[in-house]
Amino acid sequence: MNEPVPPAKALGSAKTVGRHRLDLVSAEGIARLQARDRRTVAAAITELERLSPQVTELLEKLQPHLGRALVVGFTGPPGAGKSTLVNALIRGLRQAGKTVGVIAVDPSSPVSGGAILGDRIRMTAALDDDGVFVRSLASRGYLGGLSPAAVRIIDALDAAGYDIIILETVGTGQNEIDVAEVADVRVVISAPGLGDDIQAMKSGLLEIADVLVVNKGDREGAEQTLQQLTGALSIRTGTAAKVQVIKTTATSGEGVDELLSAINQIGSSVLAQGVQVRRRRRARYLIARAAADLVAARIRAGEGSTLDKLADDVLSGRLHVDRAAERIVSQT
Amino acid sequence: MNEPVPPAKALGSAKTVGRHRLDLVSAEGIARLQARDRRTVAAAITELERLSPQVTELLEKLQPHLGRALVVGFTGPPGAGKSTLVNALIRGLRQAGKTVGVIAVDPSSPVSGGAILGDRIRMTAALDDDGVFVRSLASRGYLGGLSPAAVRIIDALDAAGYDIIILETVGTGQNEIDVAEVADVRVVISAPGLGDDIQAMKSGLLEIADVLVVNKGDREGAEQTLQQLTGALSIRTGTAAKVQVIKTTATSGEGVDELLSAINQIGSSVLAQGVQVRRRRRARYLIARAAADLVAARIRAGEGSTLDKLADDVLSGRLHVDRAAERIVSQT
Repeated sequence: MNEPVPPAKALGSAKTVGRHRLDLVSAEGIARLQARDRRTVAAAITELERLSPQVTELLEKLQPHLGRALVVGFTGPPGAGKSTLVNALIRGLRQAGKTVGVIAVDPSSPVSGGAILGDRIRMTAALDDDGVFVRSLASRGYLGGLSPAAVRIIDALDAAGYDIIILETVGTGQNEIDVAEVADVRVVISAPGLGDDIQAMKSGLLEIADVLVVNKGDREGAEQTLQQLTGALSIRTGTAAKVQVIKTTATSGEGVDELLSAINQIGSSVLAQGVQVRRRRRARYLIARAAADLVAARIRAGEGSTLDKLADDVLSGRLHVDRAAERIVSQT
Repeated sequence: MNEPVPPAKALGSAKTVGRHRLDLVSAEGIARLQARDRRTVAAAITELERLSPQVTELLEKLQPHLGRALVVGFTGPPGAGKSTLVNALIRGLRQAGKTVGVIAVDPSSPVSGGAILGDRIRMTAALDDDGVFVRSLASRGYLGGLSPAAVRIIDALDAAGYDIIILETVGTGQNEIDVAEVADVRVVISAPGLGDDIQAMKSGLLEIADVLVVNKGDREGAEQTLQQLTGALSIRTGTAAKVQVIKTTATSGEGVDELLSAINQIGSSVLAQGVQVRRRRRARYLIARAAADLVAARIRAGEGSTLDKLADDVLSGRLHVDRAAERIVSQT
């Protein structure tokens, strides 16, 4: 670690950032990242999260090494055994000789300061294994949602040579949707016996799933849940054919191999789209989300008679809410 | 039911619609609605949901009778015992001589065609009681969210004289947020022993709650959950003071009276804002949501080099996603 002292004016913030930076963007730094050196990967991610001034240079250097990794999104309601299943998958992937990066999108971070999901995975599956890297990431604002840092961290893990990047959320609202939209392969996890709420909850995510998992397959009602989901899927013409429904029991490992091969199968066709298409799709989704938030915030903070008039017209049924939205958007 | 046959050209669609319409907008129809005649209330809601051509006239007639009802939103993760608690509240409200309208926002409807939540409430609490009216409402599109019909149905139930309108969701993403934003009083329900996922999930909703309920208060860990939530709230200065945290056991009725008086207390100050302010706030929120969806859809469907350039700049860290969003919005 004998780097030259960097000129002070080139430094974005603290000394440590400067040290990491010189390390990271040097040929040696990139080589270390590609060798999945744990400290280097962690330092790169920290830079990307901070969006420090050095990020542009770092990402440029990563560019030639991008495109190999498959991003797999895991979403699903609480109680479905998501973390246990992800741990089982990591074990399966490791046994198959694949390296795994995990980005755990954790809406609790702003409150607890903790990293519930990441810590748990780290403890149970990834301890002392250089083939697994786990990072927890706070979500954006109070309504959740993926931060733009997430797409850059995907790039860092990709350049570092992780074969599979697991993007997991603890499952609230916008996080779930974002994780599903940003991933190459979307896995939605469910389980029997979670009650009517869950049945209803799943329906929204059903439509964006590539693979639908009924976990806790050894529990009573698993077969029934499987049939209900298959039935719900078959109502939509053309959808059922595309979506694979798989029963797993994460605790015993049953069905995990089947899930892995489904992910690989779907993944190979997505990877064929090329890295630029996939990266741009991710960024475009995040821009669209940010633009949506911006427009909503402006309207809600907005004053004036135009907005009140539109609100009254919507209330009276004279104007459809979508038409009101069109008028407001065209005026913004 | 001896209405004159309406002239065919005045009819929006089917004969039944016409019959209801004449019934509803007549002085007798409005009187029947105000008397909470079950068939009339149901017919009015159906018209409002369909946004039939007669809706404007109907809503105009309802206008003088609006503003008495308090809209109480109930959200929370699956497994928190939301439906049981709502049923217990309905019983408590009925015992206190209050009438209750329930709008159950149900994201499963597009898939199952069913109305899980509404049916359950209807069966257990509201059978043969004219003081309770329950309606299930499908949510918008695959990502959920409240339909604009919901705000009009609030008006219908308000005009019909229901004292409390409960707006409940089975708890997925945008529905939860919408229900909380549109309600006068926001109740977020949680429970002990739902796992880390739930702890994380709650944090997003914490910030929009007026009342925080720890249900299943007789279970192990209830006290701990209560303390965790109170702790999480106190981190945010100014928030903890506002939010009431209440422990309930819906099955035994414990804490339900306390919850009811908290709702009434908050409600009375909100009602003082006046009906126009509250109605416009609801409509404005829905317009903002629709505008956000519109903008996001345009961007995601958008082609062209400008968008690709912005996406590349976001990916490279040269441009913050929020700046990219600003540029796109200013060009739309």
